[in-house]
Amino acid sequence: MLNPELPGAMMQVGLPLGACARSWKSVRMASCGMARRNPLENKVALVTASTDGIGFAIARRLAQDGAHVVVSSRKQQNVDRAVATLKGEGLSVMGTVCHVGKAEDRERLVATAVKLHGGVDILISNAAVNPFFGSLMDVPEEVWDKILDVNVKATALLTKAVVPEMAKRGGGSIVIVSSIAAYSPLPSLGPYNVSKTALLGLTKNLALELAELNVRVNCLAPGLIRTSFSRVLWEDPARQESIKAAFQIKRIGEPEDCAGIVSFLCSEDASYITGETVVVAGGSLSHL
Amino acid sequence: MLNPELPGAMMQVGLPLGACARSWKSVRMASCGMARRNPLENKVALVTASTDGIGFAIARRLAQDGAHVVVSSRKQQNVDRAVATLKGEGLSVMGTVCHVGKAEDRERLVATAVKLHGGVDILISNAAVNPFFGSLMDVPEEVWDKILDVNVKATALLTKAVVPEMAKRGGGSIVIVSSIAAYSPLPSLGPYNVSKTALLGLTKNLALELAELNVRVNCLAPGLIRTSFSRVLWEDPARQESIKAAFQIKRIGEPEDCAGIVSFLCSEDASYITGETVVVAGGSLSHL
Amino acid sequence: MLNPELPGAMMQVGLPLGACARSWKSVRMASCGMARRNPLENKVALVTASTDGIGFAIARRLAQDGAHVVVSSRKQQNVDRAVATLKGEGLSVMGTVCHVGKAEDRERLVATAVKLHGGVDILISNAAVNPFFGSLMDVPEEVWDKILDVNVKATALLTKAVVPEMAKRGGGSIVIVSSIAAYSPLPSLGPYNVSKTALLGLTKNLALELAELNVRVNCLAPGLIRTSFSRVLWEDPARQESIKAAFQIKRIGEPEDCAGIVSFLCSEDASYITGETVVVAGGSLSHL
Amino acid sequence: MLNPELPGAMMQVGLPLGACARSWKSVRMASCGMARRNPLENKVALVTASTDGIGFAIARRLAQDGAHVVVSSRKQQNVDRAVATLKGEGLSVMGTVCHVGKAEDRERLVATAVKLHGGVDILISNAAVNPFFGSLMDVPEEVWDKILDVNVKATALLTKAVVPEMAKRGGGSIVIVSSIAAYSPLPSLGPYNVSKTALLGLTKNLALELAELNVRVNCLAPGLIRTSFSRVLWEDPARQESIKAAFQIKRIGEPEDCAGIVSFLCSEDASYITGETVVVAGGSLSHL
Repeated sequence: MLNPELPGAMMQVGLPLGACARSWKSVRMASCGMARRNPLENKVALVTASTDGIGFAIARRLAQDGAHVVVSSRKQQNVDRAVATLKGEGLSVMGTVCHVGKAEDRERLVATAVKLHGGVDILISNAAVNPFFGSLMDVPEEVWDKILDVNVKATALLTKAVVPEMAKRGGGSIVIVSSIAAYSPLPSLGPYNVSKTALLGLTKNLALELAELNVRVNCLAPGLIRTSFSRVLWEDPARQESIKAAFQIKRIGEPEDCAGIVSFLCSEDASYITGETVVVAGGSLSHL
Repeated sequence: MLNPELPGAMMQVGLPLGACARSWKSVRMASCGMARRNPLENKVALVTASTDGIGFAIARRLAQDGAHVVVSSRKQQNVDRAVATLKGEGLSVMGTVCHVGKAEDRERLVATAVKLHGGVDILISNAAVNPFFGSLMDVPEEVWDKILDVNVKATALLTKAVVPEMAKRGGGSIVIVSSIAAYSPLPSLGPYNVSKTALLGLTKNLALELAELNVRVNCLAPGLIRTSFSRVLWEDPARQESIKAAFQIKRIGEPEDCAGIVSFLCSEDASYITGETVVVAGGSLSHL
Repeated sequence: MLNPELPGAMMQVGLPLGACARSWKSVRMASCGMARRNPLENKVALVTASTDGIGFAIARRLAQDGAHVVVSSRKQQNVDRAVATLKGEGLSVMGTVCHVGKAEDRERLVATAVKLHGGVDILISNAAVNPFFGSLMDVPEEVWDKILDVNVKATALLTKAVVPEMAKRGGGSIVIVSSIAAYSPLPSLGPYNVSKTALLGLTKNLALELAELNVRVNCLAPGLIRTSFSRVLWEDPARQESIKAAFQIKRIGEPEDCAGIVSFLCSEDASYITGETVVVAGGSLSHL
Repeated sequence: MLNPELPGAMMQVGLPLGACARSWKSVRMASCGMARRNPLENKVALVTASTDGIGFAIARRLAQDGAHVVVSSRKQQNVDRAVATLKGEGLSVMGTVCHVGKAEDRERLVATAVKLHGGVDILISNAAVNPFFGSLMDVPEEVWDKILDVNVKATALLTKAVVPEMAKRGGGSIVIVSSIAAYSPLPSLGPYNVSKTALLGLTKNLALELAELNVRVNCLAPGLIRTSFSRVLWEDPARQESIKAAFQIKRIGEPEDCAGIVSFLCSEDASYITGETVVVAGGSLSHL
């Protein structure tokens, strides 16, 4: 929104050559090379389901960008391996087992970060289950329970557990991982798809409510990404080609394709972005 | 999309401690601190309507992130001032007058970049006019002509002028500046709002078609940003408060709030993001 | 989508004056006055939560349009009263208690219709609970359980119970009642809002999957409607005015405003409409 | 939105058996069989591009539902044929040539209706051109001019010409025909697609502004409909099958599939629906 005929206030401020002017506003800080080099410097980040795939790529990226990251997933050995890998890269990472569906696990996850790093600034809620493939007409009641519990309710409850810690630090940033399936149903994954649509709404609701605490809440909707989860779709080269045609994409995404945007959304550069879902899907159709 | 129970291929690759592994994929490159420090290093970027407000903030940011930037707008003196300011900050910036509605101006803009820097990698299409405030029932035919010409048609034609240059370099990135008014009409700005909705569609169409040329096309939808354009909305403190209440936002955005996401969308980190619109509006309602 | 320059096949068919031509296609049938006078003639319709408010208005309308309607809600006395009222209007209505969260109730509801009328053609899933008003940060786990159970899971399971009966009759029509809150969160109603967003996705998923059974699935998203549920919003005249201003609406809707579109969506006239959500909200902002 | 635990005010009103209670509200009127038999009784309707395809089906349906219809398109012989056909069916129809891009034609269209029937209640804006198939990179400037002129600007200007007549009669109803291409680009139809996206915005803007005049504005987005326009897609049986697979639809739609919803949107039953787009596309993906 711009009227090119009127002189902008911005331009009347003469900044010294090459300098990165000290600024009273964090927005401006973000414009400095220093801040951008480590945009998440000293931030403390929790990432669920982060020992593999998209969650792992996000955890690595947040750490590369300066954050202290707590990785987690349901199995100790996976946590150990992920931590070892990332520490081996010189990153500030530790881990803890967390089944997001369990209240005590959620609390321990938050407590771990608080104990080690004094608080929490960032939450990436990536944990999701999909225990069922098939027709919506065959979904047993307990599958609905499980999927809504873990994918929707646990996301809300984990947020609830983390926000007081963010509030203590004057704000924070949350990214919820949904899926393009929230917009365009993936065949045979009905309850999973529905849970991902629900997360679009949860993002809006949390963003609206947490704005006054200076906590921003955004959402990532990955398309077809090369992970264990989607292996069945891309493993067979012939099938991969037909999938790419159906999705109108040139290539299948990599977990790293999802990591940059998440780090960005958690940075000061995104301080006016909240309640939004960013689709990372190579051009697959989603929403206007 | 992740199944935490299966080991991820990523983790089996042992990366040397602290190293930024050489990679065959640009996606990976983007994960390296080096690339991120100057994510647009040596890219050539055109930004229209960039001597003020949002366009100026974007131009500055692209240059800070390493790009050679060509700023432009309709008046020579505005171009001169913007170039002087940004050069004074040590940035690689030059400028040229460009009225995007004129074919010869669009061609000169592209030719200038090619002559100086050998090609074009990035286009930020920000130019827009709004010559009318009032009821849709009072809009003269020539206002529709003007607004659709400059805001929609010229965006398409400028893209058409730039894409062959991008193709020569193996790809590129385009960001079209729309507005939250594309989703939620701003009162008294009917034709402007409609033109901004059209840009959501233009983004999708271009993205779909240009994918095979490795040109990505995304869209920025700013909310209420403190620019000359929106001055009438925020100048009076009382009015500002009522506006903030109506938009359910804590603060009015700054032009810089729009700059980081645009630079991000042009970087390798966004290489799997195309056809998407990112709303930067502090939580104002837009789309799911 | 039309090219006015080419002659249309339609026009070459000379239809006899004033006649309602016999047709092999139900689409055409729907164009006849006869069909339209009682568009749901002899259809059997289940409507949940239909002893009050929107559900009651829908039940009445379906019956007025020729359907045999089974009304239901959780309390026998409410069912009795609704049935008495509608029978008193000469409509073909009977009722049964149904708590949609209980499998045996869902099955009894379907069995009742089958026993009385030989099958089911139409399902209107309107039942929803909202046991909580307040911050998302205060929502107890059991509130999430309850809301997701009744509003989302029970909708899916009721559909599952009904579809085999529709399949036996060669098809059917389902309308799920969501809310404008699915798009624009209503303050203090977080979990309710999220459950309504989930229903947008459930609609898409069911529509996609049930198309091969000739079962269409659409969704209604009412705005601010004068019901017991929303009484707190419209009871006080001063508050009503501020609500109307916030919603940019001229008047608050009546339950009857939601009834016509639901009947329409269940009729042959809508036989090519599936997977869609129609917002009935007097112009409140929702989606493009 | 309903709380089944509270008794509804509606049910306390005992209506006499079988009666269609006289009511002070048009909403209620709409619930009466009488009103529904001829829901558009004595309404005067203008339909552009209505001598073929979707427009013709709509014109016929509005007339069948009781309206006096003025059909129009660019060629006298097409108008004559359409009028003859519909008069032959006993419908109240007359016609006039109208190229919506011409101010004098738009004015004559409105004047014709006013002269014959004393005013205008309904406008269906269906006229659209698509003079180009091919890459967005090859679209000549004059194609953009033509498409934006006829598809967008003329729609706005025709509305402007009609609304004063509606205002004189205390209100009216407008339906703008867009396309599913507004959401999901059709290949090789870039400018057409973009113009259809613009119409989604125009609908919202007009709805918002005309609410105070009691003029409702809604939008129809047809999917793949069997018309001359889309003949190339469905003529060849093999191609038809691949199209149906790509669209995830069981069958191609008929023009009549679009007619019922338009008549509905113009009726009193839709009096609380404004600013909405209804997709008629057999389940093709569009928007949540």
